[in-house]
Amino acid sequence: MLGATGMVGQIYVQMLSRHPWFEIRAVTGNSTVGKTLGEAYRGKGHVPEKYADLEVLPSDPAKIDADLVFSCLPTKAAREVEPKFAAAGFPVVSDSSAHRYLPDVPLIIPEVNPEHLDLIDVQRRRRGWDGYIVTTPNCTTVGFALPLKPLADDFGLKHVNVVTMQAVSGAGYNGVPSMAILGNIIPYIEGEEAKVSEEPRKILGKLVDSEVKPLDITVDATCMRAPTIVGHLEAVQVELSRDVPLEEVVASLAGFTGLPQKIELPTAPRRPIRVFSEEERPQPRLDSDAGEVPGMVISVGRVRKGKRPGTAMFVTLSHNLIRGAAGSAILTAELLYALRRLD
Amino acid sequence: MLGATGMVGQIYVQMLSRHPWFEIRAVTGNSTVGKTLGEAYRGKGHVPEKYADLEVLPSDPAKIDADLVFSCLPTKAAREVEPKFAAAGFPVVSDSSAHRYLPDVPLIIPEVNPEHLDLIDVQRRRRGWDGYIVTTPNCTTVGFALPLKPLADDFGLKHVNVVTMQAVSGAGYNGVPSMAILGNIIPYIEGEEAKVSEEPRKILGKLVDSEVKPLDITVDATCMRAPTIVGHLEAVQVELSRDVPLEEVVASLAGFTGLPQKIELPTAPRRPIRVFSEEERPQPRLDSDAGEVPGMVISVGRVRKGKRPGTAMFVTLSHNLIRGAAGSAILTAELLYALRRLD
Amino acid sequence: MLGATGMVGQIYVQMLSRHPWFEIRAVTGNSTVGKTLGEAYRGKGHVPEKYADLEVLPSDPAKIDADLVFSCLPTKAAREVEPKFAAAGFPVVSDSSAHRYLPDVPLIIPEVNPEHLDLIDVQRRRRGWDGYIVTTPNCTTVGFALPLKPLADDFGLKHVNVVTMQAVSGAGYNGVPSMAILGNIIPYIEGEEAKVSEEPRKILGKLVDSEVKPLDITVDATCMRAPTIVGHLEAVQVELSRDVPLEEVVASLAGFTGLPQKIELPTAPRRPIRVFSEEERPQPRLDSDAGEVPGMVISVGRVRKGKRPGTAMFVTLSHNLIRGAAGSAILTAELLYALRRLD
Amino acid sequence: MLGATGMVGQIYVQMLSRHPWFEIRAVTGNSTVGKTLGEAYRGKGHVPEKYADLEVLPSDPAKIDADLVFSCLPTKAAREVEPKFAAAGFPVVSDSSAHRYLPDVPLIIPEVNPEHLDLIDVQRRRRGWDGYIVTTPNCTTVGFALPLKPLADDFGLKHVNVVTMQAVSGAGYNGVPSMAILGNIIPYIEGEEAKVSEEPRKILGKLVDSEVKPLDITVDATCMRAPTIVGHLEAVQVELSRDVPLEEVVASLAGFTGLPQKIELPTAPRRPIRVFSEEERPQPRLDSDAGEVPGMVISVGRVRKGKRPGTAMFVTLSHNLIRGAAGSAILTAELLYALRRLD
Repeated sequence: MLGATGMVGQIYVQMLSRHPWFEIRAVTGNSTVGKTLGEAYRGKGHVPEKYADLEVLPSDPAKIDADLVFSCLPTKAAREVEPKFAAAGFPVVSDSSAHRYLPDVPLIIPEVNPEHLDLIDVQRRRRGWDGYIVTTPNCTTVGFALPLKPLADDFGLKHVNVVTMQAVSGAGYNGVPSMAILGNIIPYIEGEEAKVSEEPRKILGKLVDSEVKPLDITVDATCMRAPTIVGHLEAVQVELSRDVPLEEVVASLAGFTGLPQKIELPTAPRRPIRVFSEEERPQPRLDSDAGEVPGMVISVGRVRKGKRPGTAMFVTLSHNLIRGAAGSAILTAELLYALRRLD
Repeated sequence: MLGATGMVGQIYVQMLSRHPWFEIRAVTGNSTVGKTLGEAYRGKGHVPEKYADLEVLPSDPAKIDADLVFSCLPTKAAREVEPKFAAAGFPVVSDSSAHRYLPDVPLIIPEVNPEHLDLIDVQRRRRGWDGYIVTTPNCTTVGFALPLKPLADDFGLKHVNVVTMQAVSGAGYNGVPSMAILGNIIPYIEGEEAKVSEEPRKILGKLVDSEVKPLDITVDATCMRAPTIVGHLEAVQVELSRDVPLEEVVASLAGFTGLPQKIELPTAPRRPIRVFSEEERPQPRLDSDAGEVPGMVISVGRVRKGKRPGTAMFVTLSHNLIRGAAGSAILTAELLYALRRLD
Repeated sequence: MLGATGMVGQIYVQMLSRHPWFEIRAVTGNSTVGKTLGEAYRGKGHVPEKYADLEVLPSDPAKIDADLVFSCLPTKAAREVEPKFAAAGFPVVSDSSAHRYLPDVPLIIPEVNPEHLDLIDVQRRRRGWDGYIVTTPNCTTVGFALPLKPLADDFGLKHVNVVTMQAVSGAGYNGVPSMAILGNIIPYIEGEEAKVSEEPRKILGKLVDSEVKPLDITVDATCMRAPTIVGHLEAVQVELSRDVPLEEVVASLAGFTGLPQKIELPTAPRRPIRVFSEEERPQPRLDSDAGEVPGMVISVGRVRKGKRPGTAMFVTLSHNLIRGAAGSAILTAELLYALRRLD
Repeated sequence: MLGATGMVGQIYVQMLSRHPWFEIRAVTGNSTVGKTLGEAYRGKGHVPEKYADLEVLPSDPAKIDADLVFSCLPTKAAREVEPKFAAAGFPVVSDSSAHRYLPDVPLIIPEVNPEHLDLIDVQRRRRGWDGYIVTTPNCTTVGFALPLKPLADDFGLKHVNVVTMQAVSGAGYNGVPSMAILGNIIPYIEGEEAKVSEEPRKILGKLVDSEVKPLDITVDATCMRAPTIVGHLEAVQVELSRDVPLEEVVASLAGFTGLPQKIELPTAPRRPIRVFSEEERPQPRLDSDAGEVPGMVISVGRVRKGKRPGTAMFVTLSHNLIRGAAGSAILTAELLYALRRLD
């Protein structure tokens, strides 16, 4: 695990401390090198006893022995460090945005586009690497891009408008000062809207001739920061290719499953989307932890038709640190393992 | 003032305690009848000394002597009480939704549709009242319906999508339990979306032959409750009749004024809309109080073009208790006074 | 379970849904009679599937078949209903304050004064009941009365000053309006300080000749409400009978165990008190869930000596709904069962 | 103004923008040197138009022309910079803790110990400065040290125990991450308790032979951070030299005035202490702004006698940025001006 000592790193450590397939061999950090994980997290959360005494190492491939590397490095560090690990033969699964938009780097939601993993071969060939880099989306993208998949498949998709209310944990432990957000909302998150507008087009795109052809949709986004701890809540309006009865929209969402469900990956929920009929749900504090592995289910509610034919609206909630980061990466790693891409 | 002892009532009392034209003659309440205003507000806020000793009366027209009646009664009580006052000869300016949608009752934002006040004559004639009822919009409607006015006038308007994050004060002092909202967002407010979808069509409509012809637009709304004290923040996407350069949209919003500005009503801000260029504004805690009379200016920010031609996006913030209630009603009363409709 | 549909009721249901000894046979309520538990909790929390379909009954002994009754009724209802159940032969374990201060009713913290259960015989004899009432303390009392026990035993105790910052869940779901507490603290909780000052004297008292002789200490309390969800945090200053080195105070607290630990009751933590050495702990959001059964361990931190000889200071945190209510009652019931008082 | 660009700096600028005697001639900063004040505060608050275009200068005495210098520098910078200004002939009024505890530096609450200003002469003589340094107390100290003054004078004071719940603004804009404090309380503030225990002894001390003889009391403190924006709320227990009826304690507090009241300094409230009889007050959100100049009055409530004779308890609230920093410094400067110590 590279960059293991931040907010997301903690979640990885917790999830991996009870994982049936994976075990943490080493953790790396920056300012905390030389400390134990327990010391690095002091005052900010809990470390499972199992890993409390792991020493934080520098992010150097020569010092690490592992079958797979998770990276939750900040963008700039990721840009530098991840290729070194890939070149040194490590499969790298990264939450960082550093390489997400490169044409030969797969951007994966395991339920949505597992076939994009074939880009790995393109990537290795083109770059001459023994290892490779696979990326997961921005924490805000996952929450609505996953529910878009069944809608795009079943009814066709033309346009999306998303307004997000994002939890402070999404900005890292020191990211949002309390003076900025207590009793307040900030209607802007630097760099976020561009990511959120672009990523779904790649994720929902088709792999044609070793290249992802983006889905032909437009995505407008307004990203806000709200005084919640975890759980990105998003109000989504979609324009479908045709007018569809409400029940069909609900059925499409609620019934959706993908490859991780089919091959029963350990971190995959039985159903990745839960659809609430209660109007006052989902709520970040009550519902972010949904799922057999808590935080892996995306909660959708308030599914309604818009005033104009062919439009539908819903609210979606996802655990930004789990389904939006660590959980997605672990599920992606399970997929790589199951598909024999770690051998 | 009818129903003076709630959250909005307090704001009225504060605003009227320093008003150049109006003075409170009597306040009415329900469970607090017989107490003084000071006692009725105990523990929930401040009462200006000037009015602290006013006795709370029952809402009975026979007991009240005033040139105008403000009503912030709950819907059910308003439905019953307001017509009694209108029949007894009082001009009633009401924040309640009870009569807002009746064809002969004007629904007024003074900067937007002062000409709708001509409905007063229709109303009096039809109902045989000496007095009349004039209403102000839902607190959430004002925040985006006012900025829609210049856009509709300058560019034509076809569709609106609004996602709101509403402060807890909008639900009354006891409306939102802390258990429900601390560190949380509730993606639903009962009855709100129907109001928010319907009211702008009437407000922006044309008065033709003694009748309001609603503006031909569709409004989709998602209304949420957020852990903020005051200030409804709203993310708006509009579809205009034609593609317009961003600067023109900004200029249209920032330059807008209406009749209250022209005739310099005391509670009217010099410019009803302030447009921020800073991306991280407006924010409820910093900007709700904007304006020469605090809370009367609507703050707009993040004005952008959408991905599709002819669409624009912005964020709007309004003080839900002032511009969204007491302030709008007082400004409407000033308009009635200036137009000699209180004689 | 009497009064099962409030905040505390929900916790009981969750805890009992995975309890090794107990099973819920029936739940009672008031306004929700006839609904299922699932419906009664709608929008306020989760019900374990196992009990979601239980029908809410009225609180009538004739309709209930159970070996033991938990009561989390409001005080007034408890005063009336609990004696009926006791008279009808039910052992009643009550969180309510209704009977807590009666001389023949035991007020129990299982680790502190299990021997007070002998009052049951006095109670039955005096009142001619087949059943009996046993009570648990106020949620705020438990947090500091339990740590006082080892200090009183080891060093003698003369005076206590406690300042509390209590979570909003302690007042019930609708107890604290968000308008009152968002970004605020309320320095008063009705009726609380009297309870908090009196209860430790009874709990720490000696049973002599079928009567509890209160411990001869004075307790000064200032009880405040803070914008936290769960976890009552309390700053405690004690005056001991003699000057004691800091390490002895820490050792006394950290080493404390009682009868529930000795006989290994299922809900008993291995050590009821955890002592933090990190200065910035315990914190409500991080530490309220401490314990093998989450929420049963009381977290103590910042143990220091005061400026005057013989004084010590510490901060204590307890989960107000678990160790402060449902968990204490369940542990008490386990004790009754283990001591063969349910036969 | 030195270090004008932080949280407290903003308050100074606002207060001085409408001050009858003082005007800002120059502001200094560190990372914002070269910007205007308006740019330096962007996104964090408002700057009065009057001072928005002031350029931020480096903290160099050679570049500043002023009759008095306010310093709200961080401790380390203050230690270095303030003596330079004093040596260069400037009177320096400082909020910083850097020189507060030096025997020849007065630590002033204008209502409490104006006579300590005579230390200025000692200081100048000893250090050979043309100017001098006067300091104001820690923001937490003011809130309870001021109310202690009448109690010490009227009844004698032996011991104080204070538990504080401090607003996040006290730590500076970036001081408390939202992840740390949302829905949480942190029972520790680094370095705070030592200051809070020591300062009242100096402030309440007597000036004897050019030296402050500290008041012979002990102060125990527990300092916590709470999720409030402004207003430090403190629960105080005092041990007086004799048992005093409650009404006398209340009268002593409510009736207290000092020199600033007598000579009617512009920022002095008519009465520095307001005593609430309502049990649920004072509250940070409702009462921090108390006073003719908002934030200069200290609100006291819940005055009660303790269980032991001679003890009394109360709760005190002070605006940590105004009475706790900028306001105290401005009032001190007014005192210096009135006493002709700026000539």
